[in-house]
Amino acid sequence: MVKIGVIGGGQLARMMVPPAVALGFDLCVLAETEGSSAAIAATMVGDYNQLQVVRDFAKTVDVVTFDHEHVPLEILETLVADGVEIHPSPKALAFAQNKLAMRRRLGELNLPMPIWAEINTPAELQEFLDANGGEVILKTPIGGYDGKGVRVIRAVEEAADWFVFAPLLAEEKVSFTRELAQLSARSSTGEFRSWPLVQTVQVDGVCAEVIAPAPDATAATLEYAVEIARGVAEGLGVTGVLAVEMFETTDGRLLINELAMRPHNSGHFSIEGSVTSQFEQHLRAVAGFPLGSTELTNESAVMVNLLGVDETNDFITHYRHVMQLHPHAKIHTYGKAARKGRKLGHVTVVASEAGWALAQARAAAEVLLRG
Amino acid sequence: MVKIGVIGGGQLARMMVPPAVALGFDLCVLAETEGSSAAIAATMVGDYNQLQVVRDFAKTVDVVTFDHEHVPLEILETLVADGVEIHPSPKALAFAQNKLAMRRRLGELNLPMPIWAEINTPAELQEFLDANGGEVILKTPIGGYDGKGVRVIRAVEEAADWFVFAPLLAEEKVSFTRELAQLSARSSTGEFRSWPLVQTVQVDGVCAEVIAPAPDATAATLEYAVEIARGVAEGLGVTGVLAVEMFETTDGRLLINELAMRPHNSGHFSIEGSVTSQFEQHLRAVAGFPLGSTELTNESAVMVNLLGVDETNDFITHYRHVMQLHPHAKIHTYGKAARKGRKLGHVTVVASEAGWALAQARAAAEVLLRG
Repeated sequence: MVKIGVIGGGQLARMMVPPAVALGFDLCVLAETEGSSAAIAATMVGDYNQLQVVRDFAKTVDVVTFDHEHVPLEILETLVADGVEIHPSPKALAFAQNKLAMRRRLGELNLPMPIWAEINTPAELQEFLDANGGEVILKTPIGGYDGKGVRVIRAVEEAADWFVFAPLLAEEKVSFTRELAQLSARSSTGEFRSWPLVQTVQVDGVCAEVIAPAPDATAATLEYAVEIARGVAEGLGVTGVLAVEMFETTDGRLLINELAMRPHNSGHFSIEGSVTSQFEQHLRAVAGFPLGSTELTNESAVMVNLLGVDETNDFITHYRHVMQLHPHAKIHTYGKAARKGRKLGHVTVVASEAGWALAQARAAAEVLLRG
Repeated sequence: MVKIGVIGGGQLARMMVPPAVALGFDLCVLAETEGSSAAIAATMVGDYNQLQVVRDFAKTVDVVTFDHEHVPLEILETLVADGVEIHPSPKALAFAQNKLAMRRRLGELNLPMPIWAEINTPAELQEFLDANGGEVILKTPIGGYDGKGVRVIRAVEEAADWFVFAPLLAEEKVSFTRELAQLSARSSTGEFRSWPLVQTVQVDGVCAEVIAPAPDATAATLEYAVEIARGVAEGLGVTGVLAVEMFETTDGRLLINELAMRPHNSGHFSIEGSVTSQFEQHLRAVAGFPLGSTELTNESAVMVNLLGVDETNDFITHYRHVMQLHPHAKIHTYGKAARKGRKLGHVTVVASEAGWALAQARAAAEVLLRG
């Protein structure tokens, strides 16, 4: 029996349940609350910010991995000292938790990024604004996700309330044609596999749609994206699934935007769209097993997120309607309370033609969200 | 929230977990024992032969369905009288529980079958033997599965110990080229969908391999198989997944062998091989939702059963080896104690070429079983 512990009871832990059931792994989730998205696999409920809670949980499993990147590094380092196997390691996770550390490390590895700077004072921000066209992206290095902790800044005053969080990360506002994501996995034995590059569509900083593979990507782009992902995975010592979000610039370059060291929204298409889903691959990787094929199961797979419209969203009330109209739609709900903008589920359509898949997935999502 | 109750904690209930998680259905399993194959979804442990147990369980769910066909009909009829929604209904299930009742009903529906007779005495058996070439199949009408309760008989004496179970069912020994299975689903609203016809390979009365679609089947055969399945589903009032096992005779006819009114071994390929798996379809059907697409996800899907070699089988010890050699193999384990001949899991390979898929699935199964 392989006992895999997942810290965090969100939808990512929930979507690890099916491959764990298939492979006969014992999935044990440390959930934040009763009734979490991953409740079916929750074996403990507790606060991942408390060393004793995480330590007690770790004792019940063979290997520890994550639903999110928020567990304090000190706790994880203590566990490593205890002899607990953790994937990704706190050493790698440090780069996912702190965007300044990530930028520094990617720089050392000569990986392509937007121009960036560490900002400690208004004067430094002014200088960066002046050097980068008067409009830049400012980020809190720690704790941001889904557009939180990110601001477009045109004047130093717009960041006045943020200097208490300094050092901050400033980045050039990249002129891009689209956003791409390269999903890959690296096992604890060093094996590396990548899925086809995908195109992601963000709305208000939140992933709305993913098209796999990225339409009209050149062979050179596809190859370069994998090279970048491999550079990140090996350079940062990542184990498990790694998502590298990238900009494709108007002049055709790829620049690394964000990283996630866990299954990622840009990879949900892989549940039906790939021979091995990102969730199965993550379990294989962290348990030290060989990785599965990342081939697509058809020409294309399109995923559309179900982002809450308001507190009344209840997809099951629309199942009759959506299933009648869209027999190819694969519906995923996360069992979370509805709230405006919240990721409540997603729909994937796999097909030989991307345009048809996109139209079907969008229409199905619309029915699920609005009836 | 849709609460679907499943009586029986075997692998079929276990494989309903992934689609229930995806669709946000609350799957509640009444398991026979602690540590059942479907333990992750078990909400009650108890004996399905006891009315009070089943009644208490039924009160916790919106609809009741099954992992197996062995719940006493009287119990189910009492529940129906209580107002419980049960799919398939006890009226339909009666035909799955009693092979004589099934043969009688199929006869009324003019559906194609082997020649058969009800046998109450040695003289009747002798007469049937004489009329059917001196070699016939004798079955106990109730309780048989996986080759149990079935005997090839050449002389009345070979059945001497079985007349206490009379009436028995005698069938002609059909001269067949291969066995086929037509998987379909009928929802509680009457909607009907069928998967492509598959070829099944039985060893000692137990399913060993399934090839989807059935190689070299003519359009007429494919169409006729669906017509038969629809005739059975509608004629017997089946709701949920229905598997019709058939012989393809040497003179090209299809004859109904056995029926199962639940997800069936011949449909496991559909987890990866079809847009909608038999397990998702069963949940949709019994909950009264529209059915999903039954298209194949590729040209072919091959499933090979993992039948226990002895008590020492432990697939996970061979995962490193099998995953290294067969990155396309989809491994399913059932979490059951190993025993010779027991169904412990299965492997599916989906591919554009059936021969390659079969070779891969067989080789992967061999590694899992024998290292």
